Amino acid sequence: MATKSRTSGTKTTKKRRNTRATSPAPARRAASTAKKKASRKKAAGSKRKTTAKKSASKAGAKRSGKMVYYFGALKTEGRGDMKGLLGGKGANLADMTSIGLPVPAGFTITTETCAAYYTQGRRLPKGLMESVEKNVRLLERETKKKFGDASNPLLVSVRSGAKVSMPGMMDTVLNLGLNDKVVEGLAALTDNERFAYDAYRRLINMYGDVVMGVDHEHFEEAFDQIKRQYGVTLDTDVPTEGMKDLCDAYKNVYLHHIGKPFPQNPMQQLKLAIEAVFKSWNIPRAVRYRQINEITGLNGTAVNVQSMVYGNMGDDSGTGVAFTRNPSTGVNTFYGEFLVNAQGEDVVAGIRTPRPVDEMTKWNAKVFKQLLAIKKKLEKHYRDMQDIEFTIERGELFMLQTRTGKRTGAAAVKIACDLVKEKLITQDQALLSVPAGDLTQLLLPSFDDSAKKHAKVLTTGLPASPGVAVGSPAFTAGEAVERANNGERVILVRKETSPEDVDGMHSAVGILTSTGGMTSHAAVVARGWGKCCVAGAGDIHIASNGESFTVNGHTYGRTDIISLDGSTGQVMDGSVETTEPELSVEFRRLMGWADKRRRLSVRTNADTPVDASRAREFGAQGIGLTRTEHMFFEGDRIVAMREMILADTAQARTQALSKLLPFQKDDFYGIFVAMDGLPVTIRLLDPPLHEFLPHDEESQAEMARSMGVGLEEIKRRVAMLHEANPMLGHRGCRLAVTYPEILRMQVRAIVEAMMDCQEAGVKAKPEIMIPLVGVAKELATLRLLTEETIDTVKKERDYTKKLNIPIGTMIEIPRAALTADSIAKHADFFSFGTNDLTQLTFGYSRDDINAFLPDYLTQEILEKDPFQTLDQSGVGQLVETAIERGRTTHPDIKLGICGEHGGDPASVYFCHDADLEYVSCSPFRVPIARLAAAQASIRQEQAKKALRSKAKKKR
Amino acid sequence: MATKSRTSGTKTTKKRRNTRATSPAPARRAASTAKKKASRKKAAGSKRKTTAKKSASKAGAKRSGKMVYYFGALKTEGRGDMKGLLGGKGANLADMTSIGLPVPAGFTITTETCAAYYTQGRRLPKGLMESVEKNVRLLERETKKKFGDASNPLLVSVRSGAKVSMPGMMDTVLNLGLNDKVVEGLAALTDNERFAYDAYRRLINMYGDVVMGVDHEHFEEAFDQIKRQYGVTLDTDVPTEGMKDLCDAYKNVYLHHIGKPFPQNPMQQLKLAIEAVFKSWNIPRAVRYRQINEITGLNGTAVNVQSMVYGNMGDDSGTGVAFTRNPSTGVNTFYGEFLVNAQGEDVVAGIRTPRPVDEMTKWNAKVFKQLLAIKKKLEKHYRDMQDIEFTIERGELFMLQTRTGKRTGAAAVKIACDLVKEKLITQDQALLSVPAGDLTQLLLPSFDDSAKKHAKVLTTGLPASPGVAVGSPAFTAGEAVERANNGERVILVRKETSPEDVDGMHSAVGILTSTGGMTSHAAVVARGWGKCCVAGAGDIHIASNGESFTVNGHTYGRTDIISLDGSTGQVMDGSVETTEPELSVEFRRLMGWADKRRRLSVRTNADTPVDASRAREFGAQGIGLTRTEHMFFEGDRIVAMREMILADTAQARTQALSKLLPFQKDDFYGIFVAMDGLPVTIRLLDPPLHEFLPHDEESQAEMARSMGVGLEEIKRRVAMLHEANPMLGHRGCRLAVTYPEILRMQVRAIVEAMMDCQEAGVKAKPEIMIPLVGVAKELATLRLLTEETIDTVKKERDYTKKLNIPIGTMIEIPRAALTADSIAKHADFFSFGTNDLTQLTFGYSRDDINAFLPDYLTQEILEKDPFQTLDQSGVGQLVETAIERGRTTHPDIKLGICGEHGGDPASVYFCHDADLEYVSCSPFRVPIARLAAAQASIRQEQAKKALRSKAKKKR
Repeated sequence: MATKSRTSGTKTTKKRRNTRATSPAPARRAASTAKKKASRKKAAGSKRKTTAKKSASKAGAKRSGKMVYYFGALKTEGRGDMKGLLGGKGANLADMTSIGLPVPAGFTITTETCAAYYTQGRRLPKGLMESVEKNVRLLERETKKKFGDASNPLLVSVRSGAKVSMPGMMDTVLNLGLNDKVVEGLAALTDNERFAYDAYRRLINMYGDVVMGVDHEHFEEAFDQIKRQYGVTLDTDVPTEGMKDLCDAYKNVYLHHIGKPFPQNPMQQLKLAIEAVFKSWNIPRAVRYRQINEITGLNGTAVNVQSMVYGNMGDDSGTGVAFTRNPSTGVNTFYGEFLVNAQGEDVVAGIRTPRPVDEMTKWNAKVFKQLLAIKKKLEKHYRDMQDIEFTIERGELFMLQTRTGKRTGAAAVKIACDLVKEKLITQDQALLSVPAGDLTQLLLPSFDDSAKKHAKVLTTGLPASPGVAVGSPAFTAGEAVERANNGERVILVRKETSPEDVDGMHSAVGILTSTGGMTSHAAVVARGWGKCCVAGAGDIHIASNGESFTVNGHTYGRTDIISLDGSTGQVMDGSVETTEPELSVEFRRLMGWADKRRRLSVRTNADTPVDASRAREFGAQGIGLTRTEHMFFEGDRIVAMREMILADTAQARTQALSKLLPFQKDDFYGIFVAMDGLPVTIRLLDPPLHEFLPHDEESQAEMARSMGVGLEEIKRRVAMLHEANPMLGHRGCRLAVTYPEILRMQVRAIVEAMMDCQEAGVKAKPEIMIPLVGVAKELATLRLLTEETIDTVKKERDYTKKLNIPIGTMIEIPRAALTADSIAKHADFFSFGTNDLTQLTFGYSRDDINAFLPDYLTQEILEKDPFQTLDQSGVGQLVETAIERGRTTHPDIKLGICGEHGGDPASVYFCHDADLEYVSCSPFRVPIARLAAAQASIRQEQAKKALRSKAKKKR
Repeated sequence: MATKSRTSGTKTTKKRRNTRATSPAPARRAASTAKKKASRKKAAGSKRKTTAKKSASKAGAKRSGKMVYYFGALKTEGRGDMKGLLGGKGANLADMTSIGLPVPAGFTITTETCAAYYTQGRRLPKGLMESVEKNVRLLERETKKKFGDASNPLLVSVRSGAKVSMPGMMDTVLNLGLNDKVVEGLAALTDNERFAYDAYRRLINMYGDVVMGVDHEHFEEAFDQIKRQYGVTLDTDVPTEGMKDLCDAYKNVYLHHIGKPFPQNPMQQLKLAIEAVFKSWNIPRAVRYRQINEITGLNGTAVNVQSMVYGNMGDDSGTGVAFTRNPSTGVNTFYGEFLVNAQGEDVVAGIRTPRPVDEMTKWNAKVFKQLLAIKKKLEKHYRDMQDIEFTIERGELFMLQTRTGKRTGAAAVKIACDLVKEKLITQDQALLSVPAGDLTQLLLPSFDDSAKKHAKVLTTGLPASPGVAVGSPAFTAGEAVERANNGERVILVRKETSPEDVDGMHSAVGILTSTGGMTSHAAVVARGWGKCCVAGAGDIHIASNGESFTVNGHTYGRTDIISLDGSTGQVMDGSVETTEPELSVEFRRLMGWADKRRRLSVRTNADTPVDASRAREFGAQGIGLTRTEHMFFEGDRIVAMREMILADTAQARTQALSKLLPFQKDDFYGIFVAMDGLPVTIRLLDPPLHEFLPHDEESQAEMARSMGVGLEEIKRRVAMLHEANPMLGHRGCRLAVTYPEILRMQVRAIVEAMMDCQEAGVKAKPEIMIPLVGVAKELATLRLLTEETIDTVKKERDYTKKLNIPIGTMIEIPRAALTADSIAKHADFFSFGTNDLTQLTFGYSRDDINAFLPDYLTQEILEKDPFQTLDQSGVGQLVETAIERGRTTHPDIKLGICGEHGGDPASVYFCHDADLEYVSCSPFRVPIARLAAAQASIRQEQAKKALRSKAKKKR
């Protein structure tokens, strides 16, 4: 028996609801304000919490038609789109049946019936049981079995199923219809006494526990006693006699706790089970779940009653799971496994080794042929690859489940293109069918599937940057550089990383940190490079001497080898074999379709010519974010940078900065050349200055020596620059306000590099981005300073041509979004820095969020890590506000996003809907963004079409 | 001559404008959206920057009437309300003249004339100079002097003056009308050659520099040469002959740089000076200033031409400044100083010692009588105490300036009450006349004025918490406690303070920190206690051995004495004498009037019964914020707290927490008793747990010893809990989500204390506040947990009566404000935590803001420290949004504010207008809030009345 569902399938619906429930976007504000006023008026007079109940009762009272919907070969009354009435499960069963799959027949009691049960004072509505009996008779006719008939018994399962999946409600009672007589009949019929009594004891247990509320542990105690009695320890070792004794013992437990014997009348069993499902709708846990999740407006739960089928009735029975195409490669072959004389759990549990479906021809060619036909039918109906579960009871095939099959990124692309070729779907449908995020798998090397199966997983951290890495641990950046230079493959293992570690990170083949989240320094830098990174692996403890790390009892030193999987977060022992990616014809084809369909431009975040070139190969149409701080950490630069920081006067700072100028100019020149003809947005210096100073005494002493100043002086300056909350400190444009000479040097470097490019025939298109603006006057002041600097350089070089250098700002401070009308007056463009905007809107430090994020996700307080997927209700609302207000004072302002969210599909959809001009993301995510942008366009078009046809219908 | 203005007086206007210019509050949103759409349409087609110019030119072209407005005894054509046409200065001069003050006569050229100057291609409009000449003739008639007449010369000053004060524009040219002939006449007339030539050389210098643009240093060089020639170093030592030579030298400088001799024709001088004023309107610095400050819609600048008067024309001349009442005490006596034969600068500069005005009777009784009459007239006209400047030229009195006089808090209260008694103002006007913030001075001891005059000020930090302190430095909290217990008066001197220092802070008489802002830990805690604190005194350097501090070269150790003034931020050497405050009859009377007028309730932020009682004495109507974290730092508590933090399991944590329960219960019991019958809002634990662990190795070792665990274990836990940005970390309700047992203990303590109170006949009214909510489900989940805990305790104690404990949240995360509709569903009240809301909305850490705040205030990027005065455009907008949205789903939700802003008058006005129910502030600020709340009510009423009468006029 394998009807147990493997997923819920209704999660998406709930999420959409939640998003809707929160505050309206500014675009919708005018309309919604009116609505709110109305609802406020309404709410004013009544108590809040009773509303949901009342509306439910009204619905129950008003409609009171058909209570039970049959599904089966004889007739199918429900439809796939009747989730509100039949619940998610009931609607799906009806759908599968109506396309002709051999689904075990049954019927669904509607959610309205549940509502009626409550409005009528917790009584089963009149006529319900008559209707149920009628449907049981129909079921008997179809299955040619009889409910309660020992010679040919019909057994059924009973399950709850609301429109939205809901933990806490009654789950499942199997084998209903068994009693002391029927169990004997079943034993005879199957010629398998143990099977029959095992089924019976399960029924008594589930029925007592789930339906009648007897504590499960009382049954456990009884089982333990039986096991002791027969001298066995495993359930499976209990012999047939023991199972019989167990049934008696269970019946005694039932009698003892309920005061009545276990009901022998199957219809009585069914009635109580139905009522139990209805009751479970309002148990505290379910009520609380709805309350906390603000699930309102539901009628109640439906009840599904379905005939049982068994794959363990002998050697002519069996069970299996399969995909209609190869889910790893996408190749169009039937792909799966089956087991003879077994239940579905056995396939999943891996106790016995199943056989590949191809071998079914030898066992039952007819069934195999039938399955191939079903594969075709299913793909035609669902227009996609399916993942199916089936059971063969005494030679007869039953389909228990079908759903869209999960697949690798490569398979998704291949299947999509093949289905277009097979004319099953359109190009648009193909584009929509590939989860954009899965493209990453196609671009990076990965571990060999079979090799990984045998690998020893030490711990699992956060999959911070996809890709794989095999190497030996290095514990400092310096060590990583040195050993990498000697040809070693090292993995940099750190508690967390900082800009000082960048060289070491670059030299390493992979990065592993024990703290920090998906958007920690390590994660962001690694993703930028497409380098494998596992972050926040809390089980990793680095020894205080920096010579090794331990993980769950194992210690790894410099000579040991570990393997990282950046797509799963797994840290594995030893060297796991890898495979290199090859970009398929289908990938290129799909990207071509995507580019034709998308409106959003896709830029990249890149700080070096190498990154820029790579991103360009991946299809980037410009740079949306060039961070300038990483540029100051190499060799002589950091020395000049530190001189600047130690300087006490503006003059001394300017002098130190003049040493940085040629470097900075070279940096920009290289990037402009790589991006010839495409826009390059350069963000002026952003991090607080203390990030450029060493923090441990040893490095400080070294710095003091090399700069010829006292250690005390260095320490004093480090202490002076120390900040309690650097994220909220002296950084971004605040630096330029207090140290205008830094801005001047950077702008000069940009302008001089641009002029040099023009002389060399390279088309440089810089855009200057002033970070962290929160007050309009910051931007007004710094824009003026920038323009003055541009003019100065032009005059110096006798440059008379026009220089078009847009000057804009990042919107990353909530106040900037709220006062975007003032700020837009001084900005040629806004680029949404959604990383910092998320930090400030939530009050979450992305470096510290791991302390509570896991609890938040487990308890479903947050649906997703907001640093991975843009929070539309809060952060998104600010983005929309900024867009709306910015346009009031500057209608043609250019708008883009340069946060990490630019490479997240859901966030790209949001950016499309919010009418941004471009998204910008790390180079390896550019293809993802291209595909997601196309999906956004198509979705929007579809939604518009649907609206139009709805409007037409109304007319 | 003393016509130089001491203040600008137009700053307030500008500020209101700025506030208006930013984004609209939600309440105004609907209306403004329509407006914005219109303006957006308009802006779309045209370039943005030209708008201001165009509208100015239109205004100039349209109106073209009267260009010059005379003020004097003969006639006064302008009025005080014509600031747009005559500029701020011109309108004031007209106002003073028209109430009969003997103001030196003159005339004002309108701002429209300036606009016309520009529209006509930078030419003086036709007819202007004729009009000017006509007014000069009038001036001659009134002064009985003649422009350019050597025997009785009329000399004038020329000054710019726009509607809004604007740095960068031409300031002042004095003594205009002098030439080679007139100077001789002036010498003869005054019988003071040196005076005459000194005046002449000043004219040539100012004229050359300001009007004609000759670099000032050329004149300086010439002066240096003269001084060398006469062998003197000081300007004042140059003899008469030297002054004559200097005039010649200056004329040569002028000739050399301009190519023409210094103009001898006074009318020519005047014409060029007027044009220079007009030109100065559009010099880059002024244009930039307007651009950055978004000052638009002004016509241009006015020009004020005023006859000169001199107090240094002999022993029958003089000058003085006075207040119409005593500005220190408020007593109704004429109060001031004068100097015979001197200019106004001499009084201000303090070169000569002026005499009290009373003594004037001996010198010129007539003038003194005249001044007394003017005092009466002024107070009747302005209905307030005035600060005046006057000059006596050869026995004739001239009023140069009058403005509302600055006064101490005590004087303000006394004067307000007296003016009511004198029937000059109403009670409402009295309430409005006292700056609410100044009340602090009445409640705290202060330094004796005369003693302070002689004190040596070592440095000036931030006036973080008012009051005064005299004592010797202690450098650790422990030392402070120990020495205070020995009867010593100590001042705790720290780089910054943390909750660990609370005991030491409490023992100290004052607190001095070298870093941290107005809302740093030290400042907030000190204000809560009404204890003197000077924060962020950056000149203070604490020696690394912790034995002394140095400040600007002086070193202070444990045996030295220093004095702190918390109202000014001054740190002084030695022991400065103090005076204790006495609450005056007038203070109580004014507070009585205020309580009758206000709508806002005033609560207090208090964590102990002592604080609560004191606040109640000051008029607090409940507690708006009880922080629970300070309670865990004393004695045994911190041990149990640390046990809890070190615990690895929920069970171990619960065990440690059970030790804290009795303490916590006692805390609440005491506070409930102190606040019997009044509401007490208790905030559940807020700070990150690492704040409770020691951070230096020594204390960690001690903790390890006392708790019987290894030092490594302590270090490991400290490292594990370390956060990059604690402000954005694992704190607030995030703690309760991951450690629900902490919430359970605290709620239990509240409920048990409440029940104990009821048994003891004390009416406890707790309100439970869940901090740092950003996601509705946080509150939903924790509310449920709170309710469950309340039910559990009730059951345990067989308590059957209803317990009314409102459960609400702080709105302090931007996302909470933005999604307040969702959150309000689960909240009985919102309390705006505007400290954190300001931190997050701006992205400013209040502990780190000092690195850039001074630059921001100097450059006027920020008008005020947003942690002191609520930022209405950004933070206020979020507050208004939260109120509006919260009410859509929960119309009768209770609303208050508990940030530090609750004690800031401007912020209290905002809270009143935003329709909050209460503000809550530290005990010593309660009277301030009471007065400010009354002022807010009155202002709102006045605004409504004004609107109604405006509407009536329209009809």
